[in-house]
Amino acid sequence: MSTQKIPQATAKRLPIYYRYLKILNDAGKERVSSTELSDAVKVDSATIRRDFSYFGALGKRGYGYDVENLMKFFSKTLNQDHLTSVALIGVGNLGHALLNYNFHQNNNTRISAAFDVKEEIVGTIYSGIPVYQMDEMMEQIPLQQIEIAILTVPAQVAQDTVNKLVEAGVKGIMNFTPVRITVPKNVRVQNVDLTNELQTLIYFLDNYAGEEVSEEE
Amino acid sequence: MSTQKIPQATAKRLPIYYRYLKILNDAGKERVSSTELSDAVKVDSATIRRDFSYFGALGKRGYGYDVENLMKFFSKTLNQDHLTSVALIGVGNLGHALLNYNFHQNNNTRISAAFDVKEEIVGTIYSGIPVYQMDEMMEQIPLQQIEIAILTVPAQVAQDTVNKLVEAGVKGIMNFTPVRITVPKNVRVQNVDLTNELQTLIYFLDNYAGEEVSEEE
Repeated sequence: MSTQKIPQATAKRLPIYYRYLKILNDAGKERVSSTELSDAVKVDSATIRRDFSYFGALGKRGYGYDVENLMKFFSKTLNQDHLTSVALIGVGNLGHALLNYNFHQNNNTRISAAFDVKEEIVGTIYSGIPVYQMDEMMEQIPLQQIEIAILTVPAQVAQDTVNKLVEAGVKGIMNFTPVRITVPKNVRVQNVDLTNELQTLIYFLDNYAGEEVSEEE
Repeated sequence: MSTQKIPQATAKRLPIYYRYLKILNDAGKERVSSTELSDAVKVDSATIRRDFSYFGALGKRGYGYDVENLMKFFSKTLNQDHLTSVALIGVGNLGHALLNYNFHQNNNTRISAAFDVKEEIVGTIYSGIPVYQMDEMMEQIPLQQIEIAILTVPAQVAQDTVNKLVEAGVKGIMNFTPVRITVPKNVRVQNVDLTNELQTLIYFLDNYAGEEVSEEE
């Protein structure tokens, strides 16, 4: 199986497929039909077949997909074979919750460093993670080979913090602030705007109440 | 301006537009061009024009959009003119952070009730919000006219909890668990899977490192 350029919507579903295949494999299941997969992950089977076809994974009619092979392939594609270290910037309420949140329960990702301005916590181990001063980003981020940062700072310092992160070599930012940050073209931003998600949900309830809704984005 | 059926991608951008228009309006700005708007919200101007056209909001060439009118229109569309009450189910680390997280800073949404199994917090006011027993959902949710629930329970009880929420009359669920929950067709689910978001970001960095990336979903 070879990887070609795939759409972002497909990429977003890969961790969902991977997680379910891992559950099946752990349970000793050897094969799965696209219908079973579809029921479990709530993605219609046509979409699953199209997604899998990008990877050359074509299920056999009457057999379905080989669970172990497919799981191993997705594990490799999702880079689950090595540990990815992530920095968390801003240990407020949300930042603290994310430190405790078990990102690595089902994958090989770990917050290995946190950065904050609060003197009470800088220099301590907080929820198992060392907390550094903001100034130490330039040193610690390359040293720890960190390429991904989770941004949970107050909105008014978001852009300044991002500029420093980019300078320190960060290539991907998971942005929890409501600010639409500006980055160079080679840096990727994943916006996770919780207020926005909630407002969108409310909008749909108010405007499409009682109608059937589809899961597809 | 009248509302027709709009695509989900457009609906997701409405709160972003609204928030920025509100900032402009608070600053006393009367009009805005689609280019300015595009720079600020990081959505290309063709997409903005297409989004706005669903609402019949057509900017005038050489003038742009009227800030106050547009803001008021989006405020109404997003139902910012009345308070929406939301329930939070499961006051663990993430749930607690969300109680503290200021959903209503820029909008009219409020977590008004939390539900949990932990005897230490049930019956208390936690971060300003009353915490009820799980059993009290059937009573409190209709009583408080709550239609939206934020789900931050452990994965293994997610589906059971959802069944109870649906029975109690909830119409929209913001699902923070990794479980792909099953709901009746008239109930809407917004999945916010943080592990998934992080894995997707890692996937893109590993596979498209150094390439230009686009914001568009």
